[in-house]
Amino acid sequence: MMVAASAFLTPASCPRLRPLPAAHILFYCINNRNPKSGDRSIKAPLPSPSFTPHPSSRLIRRPIRHQHSLNPSSHSSIWRLFCNQTLSPDAEVGEKVGIEAREGVRKFKKRLRIVDVRGGPDEGLDRVGQSITIRGWVRTCRVQSVVTFIEVNDGSCLSNIQCVVNSSSEGYNEVETGSVGIGASVLIEGTLVRSEGSKQKVELKVARLAVIGKSDPSAYPIQKKRASREFLRTIAHFRPRTNTFGAITRVRNALAYATHKFFQENGFVWISTPIITASDCEGAGEQFCVTTLIPSKLEGDSSPVDKVPATKNGTIDWSQDFFGKPAFLTVSGQLNAETYASALSDVYTFGPTFRAENSNTSRHLAEFWMIEPELAFADLNDDMACATAYLQYVKYVLENCKEDMDFFDTWIEKGIVNRLRDIVEKDFIQLTYTDAVELLLKAERQFEFPVKWGTDLQSEHERYITENAFGGRPVIIRDYPKDIKAFYMRLNDDGKTVAAMDVLVPRVGELIGGSQREERLEYLERRLEELNLPKESYWWYLDIRRFGSVPHAGFGLGFERLVQFATGMENIRDVIPFPRTPGSAEF
Amino acid sequence: MMVAASAFLTPASCPRLRPLPAAHILFYCINNRNPKSGDRSIKAPLPSPSFTPHPSSRLIRRPIRHQHSLNPSSHSSIWRLFCNQTLSPDAEVGEKVGIEAREGVRKFKKRLRIVDVRGGPDEGLDRVGQSITIRGWVRTCRVQSVVTFIEVNDGSCLSNIQCVVNSSSEGYNEVETGSVGIGASVLIEGTLVRSEGSKQKVELKVARLAVIGKSDPSAYPIQKKRASREFLRTIAHFRPRTNTFGAITRVRNALAYATHKFFQENGFVWISTPIITASDCEGAGEQFCVTTLIPSKLEGDSSPVDKVPATKNGTIDWSQDFFGKPAFLTVSGQLNAETYASALSDVYTFGPTFRAENSNTSRHLAEFWMIEPELAFADLNDDMACATAYLQYVKYVLENCKEDMDFFDTWIEKGIVNRLRDIVEKDFIQLTYTDAVELLLKAERQFEFPVKWGTDLQSEHERYITENAFGGRPVIIRDYPKDIKAFYMRLNDDGKTVAAMDVLVPRVGELIGGSQREERLEYLERRLEELNLPKESYWWYLDIRRFGSVPHAGFGLGFERLVQFATGMENIRDVIPFPRTPGSAEF
Repeated sequence: MMVAASAFLTPASCPRLRPLPAAHILFYCINNRNPKSGDRSIKAPLPSPSFTPHPSSRLIRRPIRHQHSLNPSSHSSIWRLFCNQTLSPDAEVGEKVGIEAREGVRKFKKRLRIVDVRGGPDEGLDRVGQSITIRGWVRTCRVQSVVTFIEVNDGSCLSNIQCVVNSSSEGYNEVETGSVGIGASVLIEGTLVRSEGSKQKVELKVARLAVIGKSDPSAYPIQKKRASREFLRTIAHFRPRTNTFGAITRVRNALAYATHKFFQENGFVWISTPIITASDCEGAGEQFCVTTLIPSKLEGDSSPVDKVPATKNGTIDWSQDFFGKPAFLTVSGQLNAETYASALSDVYTFGPTFRAENSNTSRHLAEFWMIEPELAFADLNDDMACATAYLQYVKYVLENCKEDMDFFDTWIEKGIVNRLRDIVEKDFIQLTYTDAVELLLKAERQFEFPVKWGTDLQSEHERYITENAFGGRPVIIRDYPKDIKAFYMRLNDDGKTVAAMDVLVPRVGELIGGSQREERLEYLERRLEELNLPKESYWWYLDIRRFGSVPHAGFGLGFERLVQFATGMENIRDVIPFPRTPGSAEF
Repeated sequence: MMVAASAFLTPASCPRLRPLPAAHILFYCINNRNPKSGDRSIKAPLPSPSFTPHPSSRLIRRPIRHQHSLNPSSHSSIWRLFCNQTLSPDAEVGEKVGIEAREGVRKFKKRLRIVDVRGGPDEGLDRVGQSITIRGWVRTCRVQSVVTFIEVNDGSCLSNIQCVVNSSSEGYNEVETGSVGIGASVLIEGTLVRSEGSKQKVELKVARLAVIGKSDPSAYPIQKKRASREFLRTIAHFRPRTNTFGAITRVRNALAYATHKFFQENGFVWISTPIITASDCEGAGEQFCVTTLIPSKLEGDSSPVDKVPATKNGTIDWSQDFFGKPAFLTVSGQLNAETYASALSDVYTFGPTFRAENSNTSRHLAEFWMIEPELAFADLNDDMACATAYLQYVKYVLENCKEDMDFFDTWIEKGIVNRLRDIVEKDFIQLTYTDAVELLLKAERQFEFPVKWGTDLQSEHERYITENAFGGRPVIIRDYPKDIKAFYMRLNDDGKTVAAMDVLVPRVGELIGGSQREERLEYLERRLEELNLPKESYWWYLDIRRFGSVPHAGFGLGFERLVQFATGMENIRDVIPFPRTPGSAEF
């Protein structure tokens, strides 16, 4: 295997003259990554390549000296590296290379990742004896008298691969000089062997090692000892390199994909509703203004207030703004989604939404992602059924992120796997708001906020219901008083409640809010009047009720809440890559 | 079948008292949809339900008179309707209903859609004889002496279902009174029979018909005769009800899902990069300012300029803004994605991006969706390979949207299916910028823009290369002069070009732009200096090169361009639900 993998390239035909493919340049970097290595090689124009390599050849990786180097003295351990080539034994060695292929584009191949090894059958034992190449970042490097253990992670899974280096490994000098420190990126080739350690079944016996990008261990911001979450938020560009944030990122990804899968498999069509909106008919919370009126590229002294275009009356001249009127960041795509549900039947949105509320809490973000399905020919029962089925689809992460979920269960929230399993397996309870209030009034518990029909349920009430009254089962509360719900919710027969529903889950409380929409034009118009909302702003929303109106329903789910629910992370800022909160839009 | 489907509900146990489920209320709407029908029934409080139906019972649909109606005189053709119940023969009839279930939530079921019938084996012939229920919107209603043909569409596919009504059909009076007009929403039950028409193999012999939401044919904005695209943009809430925009929406959805599938199957992790960003280090085009400083909720006279917080010097007091400094809408998630690629190896973004450029063209939107994969341990060849494989994955729409694609081939752009097939099947060509310039200089064609090494290629040049020089094959041009490309692109050995690439396709020109990123700290810093960009703004971006830097590459693809490419639609405003352009943020 090793022979094949490091076979020398023998061009099958004389390549015509062409510039050096960018891939070849990768090798320069390896020995020019240190800023202190001098500027000569940087500022001097790079020499023209003295040969024209074969751009389409596969598997061009061999421990050769580089023919045209910036720094000829330091190439002993460099070999040519086509980054994304699979070097597993199934790589097509010696593939035919003709003129046609030479002008074509390389075939895309999945790189061998650590998850392919450690997540494979029998945790990698199936690959024992194979020669493989791993690319990743050093998590730890333990130098012992005879051997050195390097733990490498490539983000494809929580597990590292343990690489065993000894003095006969090519590139061992990198270990000796201390270049293989925490955070360094490495390329390691070796043979997969059985491990005698208890933590893994296989390890990599290293034949060759190269440091791709150094990392000064004393300056590297992520040290082995645990850093606080608060500190990690200040280095949001590095925190995905930690176990916790790597796992969150993978679970977040799995939840997003599961969301698409669930709705697609059920015939829903994804709709991108607008982010910028000039229609102010949503009325759900404070909005950010989107404008080109402010000389915004200029900071501090350079953005004079008197540059904001004004009318003669001293008011802002919106006609000069980009959209000709005030525009905002959306707080919900629902109203837009309803128009598409009234044509395509079942649709869903999955996109960012915004709130300009000055809430510095662990539950609020100024920018967050929302999932908003909208079902045509559907009532509140259908809506609840859909929300339930969707939430139960969370089993996708139990099946596809087992290692990460076990990590959360061990380190973040004990029992979270069982809690998710409960969601998947247990029937959801439904309960009217009126019954819920009755239940709370009878509860032998002192609540901070008094319970009274007509007021909204507080988090403590919601958690009591789902955690205590129903012993950890998810509960859907429906038919809320109309006065505490939005204008578009369908009025129930009692004239007092609307066909709204909230899904409550243990620990988190409300995870989903939804409703059947008021599809009756007259009812909707009357509601707008009652709330003093300007009908003319809603012309298109009302139009949907004028022409071929259908009963329809939908719900909204804050995606970050779902990630919190699935991972047990307490602070919402830790489940989105770059959180936006009051005073903070760094990165 | 019909008997089973309309079986009366016989509760298995005595239900405890509970409010009327919202579903039951749907029936009121049917006869109260006309604003002229009088306000009495609306303003009067709705009567309390006189019975408590069984909330969890399935298949509660029968041609009964309604027990508690707002308008008792008009219920002859109404039956109880649980909107989303599947009434196909495989519906579980007579399922056990116990106390437990009664408090639970109905099981979510896919509604029977027209695509399930007409897109099924042998275009529906497999279902002949079945009793089915269809819900959708009337496209045409042709009243003939003996029978009436109603074409119904539910958005699940391009095809309508032809419903044949005669005077013995229940609800025939709706036809007689002209209620079944274009745009009306209907619920139709009948038996699927072979059709003698040439357009379809099956049609629905109607047993019962109900108009759910009327539509005044004279006022309905979408008439049978073709409306201009410009006009349809003014009724963006109705245009998905047309053949063209329904098809666009489905193909757009399929492309989005295919995008996720492609990257997920190849081990990429979806990252949501921030929409609001206070880091002004992207520098790609004009940005929108996001602010809470402007009294934006107030229009016209009510938003005085002097309410904008100012410092003593008369400049805008950014410290009072939501984020404490100027913030913008993102123009690209790439820089953020790079940080995640440097931890998780392969990532991709799929989210909205923004340009505040005053471009009123058929190719520009102020708000559009971008797909930005970022590959770690990858060079430009890997990048091109990935872009090629991704584009070729467009075969997904050929396989999954056949009917819609045939529609585009017939009505929008002749030959588009073959053009897409070419992309899937033909090898992509790669060519350096330098070779491309040479090729253009030799071309026997007069270009509007002169060709010269060092200037950017214009659309006419790109299209000449892909359409003429290479006869319709996709071409990737690589290694562009550094001075016409972004700061982060990797400098090639020649010191003059960078490892950038553009994918050109016939008719559209550039569809994808990508590059290998400059992973060498010193090179990147020198480039920032050359361009007078403030290093301190890039601290975190540079950090990635300081600690464990790896060769990496990525590309960006404007999703709407892809939809245009796949559908043949000429104006980009027609391939996004609610386009945002200068002066226009309606809906």
